[in-house]
Amino acid sequence: MCGIVGYIGSRNAYDILIKGLHRLEYRGYDSAGVALINPEEKLNVYKAKGKVSDLENAAKNQDLTGTIGIAHTRWATHGEPSVRNAHPHVSESGNLAIVHNGIIENYSELREQLKAKGFHFKSDTDTEVLVQLIEYAMDKHHTNLTQSVCHALRKCVGAYAIAVIDRRNPKQIVAARKGSPLVIGVGKDNSEFLVASDASPIVEYTKNVVYIDDEQVVTAEIGKQLQIWNLDKTRANVKIDEVDMDIDMLSKGGFPHFMLKEIFDQPKVLRDCMRGRLFAKTSDEEKRSGRNNDVNDNDVVLSAVKNNKDRLMSAKRFIIVACGTSWHAGLIGKQLIERYCQIPVEVDYASEFRYRDPIIYPTDVVIAISQSGETADTLAAIELAKSKGACVFGIVNAVGSSIARQTDTGIYIHVGPEIGVASTKAFTGQLTCLTLLALCLGHCKGTISKDEYDEMIQELAVIPDKMEQVLKLNDAIKTISRTYTYATNFLYLGRGWNYPVALEGALKLKEISYIHAEGYPAAEMKHGPIALVDDRMPVLFVATHHKQYQKIVSNMEEVKARGGHIIAIITEGDTEIPKIANECIEVPQTLAPLAPLLTVIPLQLLAYHVAVCKGLNVDQPRNLAKSVTVE
Amino acid sequence: MCGIVGYIGSRNAYDILIKGLHRLEYRGYDSAGVALINPEEKLNVYKAKGKVSDLENAAKNQDLTGTIGIAHTRWATHGEPSVRNAHPHVSESGNLAIVHNGIIENYSELREQLKAKGFHFKSDTDTEVLVQLIEYAMDKHHTNLTQSVCHALRKCVGAYAIAVIDRRNPKQIVAARKGSPLVIGVGKDNSEFLVASDASPIVEYTKNVVYIDDEQVVTAEIGKQLQIWNLDKTRANVKIDEVDMDIDMLSKGGFPHFMLKEIFDQPKVLRDCMRGRLFAKTSDEEKRSGRNNDVNDNDVVLSAVKNNKDRLMSAKRFIIVACGTSWHAGLIGKQLIERYCQIPVEVDYASEFRYRDPIIYPTDVVIAISQSGETADTLAAIELAKSKGACVFGIVNAVGSSIARQTDTGIYIHVGPEIGVASTKAFTGQLTCLTLLALCLGHCKGTISKDEYDEMIQELAVIPDKMEQVLKLNDAIKTISRTYTYATNFLYLGRGWNYPVALEGALKLKEISYIHAEGYPAAEMKHGPIALVDDRMPVLFVATHHKQYQKIVSNMEEVKARGGHIIAIITEGDTEIPKIANECIEVPQTLAPLAPLLTVIPLQLLAYHVAVCKGLNVDQPRNLAKSVTVE
Repeated sequence: MCGIVGYIGSRNAYDILIKGLHRLEYRGYDSAGVALINPEEKLNVYKAKGKVSDLENAAKNQDLTGTIGIAHTRWATHGEPSVRNAHPHVSESGNLAIVHNGIIENYSELREQLKAKGFHFKSDTDTEVLVQLIEYAMDKHHTNLTQSVCHALRKCVGAYAIAVIDRRNPKQIVAARKGSPLVIGVGKDNSEFLVASDASPIVEYTKNVVYIDDEQVVTAEIGKQLQIWNLDKTRANVKIDEVDMDIDMLSKGGFPHFMLKEIFDQPKVLRDCMRGRLFAKTSDEEKRSGRNNDVNDNDVVLSAVKNNKDRLMSAKRFIIVACGTSWHAGLIGKQLIERYCQIPVEVDYASEFRYRDPIIYPTDVVIAISQSGETADTLAAIELAKSKGACVFGIVNAVGSSIARQTDTGIYIHVGPEIGVASTKAFTGQLTCLTLLALCLGHCKGTISKDEYDEMIQELAVIPDKMEQVLKLNDAIKTISRTYTYATNFLYLGRGWNYPVALEGALKLKEISYIHAEGYPAAEMKHGPIALVDDRMPVLFVATHHKQYQKIVSNMEEVKARGGHIIAIITEGDTEIPKIANECIEVPQTLAPLAPLLTVIPLQLLAYHVAVCKGLNVDQPRNLAKSVTVE
Repeated sequence: MCGIVGYIGSRNAYDILIKGLHRLEYRGYDSAGVALINPEEKLNVYKAKGKVSDLENAAKNQDLTGTIGIAHTRWATHGEPSVRNAHPHVSESGNLAIVHNGIIENYSELREQLKAKGFHFKSDTDTEVLVQLIEYAMDKHHTNLTQSVCHALRKCVGAYAIAVIDRRNPKQIVAARKGSPLVIGVGKDNSEFLVASDASPIVEYTKNVVYIDDEQVVTAEIGKQLQIWNLDKTRANVKIDEVDMDIDMLSKGGFPHFMLKEIFDQPKVLRDCMRGRLFAKTSDEEKRSGRNNDVNDNDVVLSAVKNNKDRLMSAKRFIIVACGTSWHAGLIGKQLIERYCQIPVEVDYASEFRYRDPIIYPTDVVIAISQSGETADTLAAIELAKSKGACVFGIVNAVGSSIARQTDTGIYIHVGPEIGVASTKAFTGQLTCLTLLALCLGHCKGTISKDEYDEMIQELAVIPDKMEQVLKLNDAIKTISRTYTYATNFLYLGRGWNYPVALEGALKLKEISYIHAEGYPAAEMKHGPIALVDDRMPVLFVATHHKQYQKIVSNMEEVKARGGHIIAIITEGDTEIPKIANECIEVPQTLAPLAPLLTVIPLQLLAYHVAVCKGLNVDQPRNLAKSVTVE
């Protein structure tokens, strides 16, 4: 859950490393550090608690020379956030420096062994154990850095992406990965190399990248071809890919925060997501006016379905595995696939699924949902499913990510990089892809009627327009949000299609405003949570005018009877709920299965504005990292 | 969610009604009322906000004569708790009085119609609409009370159990039900009748009871046979059952609260639950000492499995439907059945399941779990499953309850009446029954090895002894609980078998201490909830020494690194977690699938003592009712 970056070449390493750290700061930001080898082969290490800007302050006026270095932005797993625990960590002799993303599970046992051999430890981290272990292997076996790294990693249990440098050999960086992401950038004629957790620190310098596989160690040396070794010391092939990512896309585009930009991006990126996949029949009027006059019928086209038709159509069961927000999307995906494809769907937390020895048949299709494509638990769940012969289908945002590469087939959500730690556009992108999948497969299977297929396609096509209408409520929601700045608790309730939206809305509020919001299926309220309801506990209902509307109105009456303060997300024109609720937020009428695409937006905005009102750092909430690449 | 009771006979009605209300108070207690017809055919109605004892105070020094009456203890659904909204409600003319348990969904439309006809309303309740509607039917059609009730009910959408009396005819009570429970007690030679929500107010006077079916209306008239009518005015058969319930079982047995009694009852009632079902092989030593020397092999015997072997063994899928605590038991049941029977299991909230048009195959077995056997959503889910041809298997506590009668087969948990609103012994009883079911069926199917079968049986047999060990920690937990009296929030985390225990522990704290506790699978913490962690948010980990132990220790380190205060439920002898956690509570070593039976007990006790320390009413928490018999 940390970000690492390394550079070796002819330019000043420090500037490139700091810029890279800023790009990676979304991966974690409780401390940061850099190690440089200066022209006199002295190893200079600078660290700071806090963000990358704190590191820059700490390094000011220091010796920042050198054309080789490694740097790190940390999200604590072992040991509290502090300068002492910040990376890079240096070996006993002072020759080696390391940066590490991941967790070495057997570190405490290894540390005791190394202590017995005379090594001293300055931090509480698992990472310091690793660098000492590499030094120990180097001394004992008199081997080079690459082979020593192989030696050391064979003794480690856990996950890692590392970069190591040796003061005595300033022409070389050694890197390795298992379970945590790592990309190598290769400069022209091997004149420079970059190592990073993702491609964003690299693309400014080169588009040529190499993705490293698990249990591989790479040697980057100036003027030489990149060398990749397997942990068993055999050589692996080097495959250079071209990365196509525009770093301008990473900017905030005029919004005060990435999160708000990404909320407002949703209509546009969903149109991108549906482009070339959803074809809605043009109305006669539109045809006359000359628009889209080439579309003659409604259709959903997904190459992933087309190319795997037999496998998907013969599936006896779908299993959706995911974490966090993606898991909420999965709960809606279950309803979509069951309804339109008539195939039973199970949804599980990836972390629970991978360890409970689940029943998986070769006739099952496992859908893995992950924004980053690097979620450690989801990756492990995929491996398990594959080992049992199931077909694995990915719904992922990050192109070329581990999950994208590990799955048999899948759909990219194509919503662009998501920088705000609280996921917004990735969620609606996931919902859109799940809807497209259910419609396309249902149509192939004949389990959806032509009328319903047409109706859904026509409506899905106009959802981005309706989202724009919802976004116009931004100012009104900002006003409402002021009231809740002082809330310490919140209940979010919904039923049916809107129940996962309630979970997702509560998670947003938790993540960025630190208010303890909990989502529940509304009918479960009476089985316990209603005991919490009093005049200090606001209750938010997602209550659009669909099936179960009357039931949720009854639930609302019960909360009201107990003095609860009610906010309701309702359908435009509803006259009943405004008589009961304290605050109402209206969204346009739509079909029930598409309601979550609209109802979630006011909840994203509410969480955003409450957090901003509270003066919190919306894009980088405390304790959280963007992608959870360790367990 | 209310309790109703009615009496007609030769004794003083008031005393019997008040005693009955006390027995039914667990069903709800925000207001209470009674209506009596005195010997001069005057209708006297007394009501009070609060509990039955408040009603007794209010009625003191009033005319309490009469041998016919109806009474009610209310849990508000429409209209705030108040004297005005308390039952009984009286008709326009003052002749009819009604008590009602349930919700009339179309009441507001009916009220407008009645207002237009000149009726006046004194309360906000749906119930008052019903009594006016009966009077209107009586006047319009010039029919008797029974036929007028039929008329009125045919116009109602919703759920009800009602009892109605007419001042002008003091020899008759008319009652009816749909969706809410109702039992009639029949006195010797039809000399007296009782009407009640369950048998507890009746058994003192007669053991002969009649269970009424949905959409039936019953006329109880002194000296005449009981008459039952269907809503279409056809006659139904009257079947008298004998009820076998000891009212002493309803007392607190020396504990300050029912909840504490029921927590301490667990070892005993689980032995009852397993009696005649679980046969553990006697060790040689025990044989020599003469104990149990007739048991030669380990076995689980369940007649429900024996009599439905083909159906259960050929099941392609199990679907567990439940609400609240029973849903948590279902999550563990899923793991048990998948592991030992190798059949995929889906778990769903009954309220979500019934409305989402789920896929149900005739080869599915639907397991319905409910303590009361009256949970409205679970009942509806059963009906839906039956309509699709699935086999329905009940796991229920209340003998003769609606769910017990509606299911094809099942197991009673046999833990005795549970009075504390927060469920404790029913949860461990449900887990025990699910374990027995999984073992028995797995053994039949050959999907569990002999070694594992033997090991589980031997261990399950000693679980009550180990529970007794855990209960010895009561004083220690009481001491710990004092620290948390001032907490406003709590996270409960667990993985695998202990993840549902975390959910259940959090629910207990919510229900009775009104602290906002939320359960989560521990690995999901990093996907959002960890943003809440600071030094004011205690975090409880259920972290016994089983698979994933090291993972949960890592999660604990992450919370600690962020200043969180940690309580851990650990396995006896663990030396690692005590170095990290602030408080540890040790439970005996057991097999992982049985760990929840032990780990849940400290969580029950913690919730209990925190609530008692806060001076709260543990047995009757605010806003909650024991069984949720309306949606």
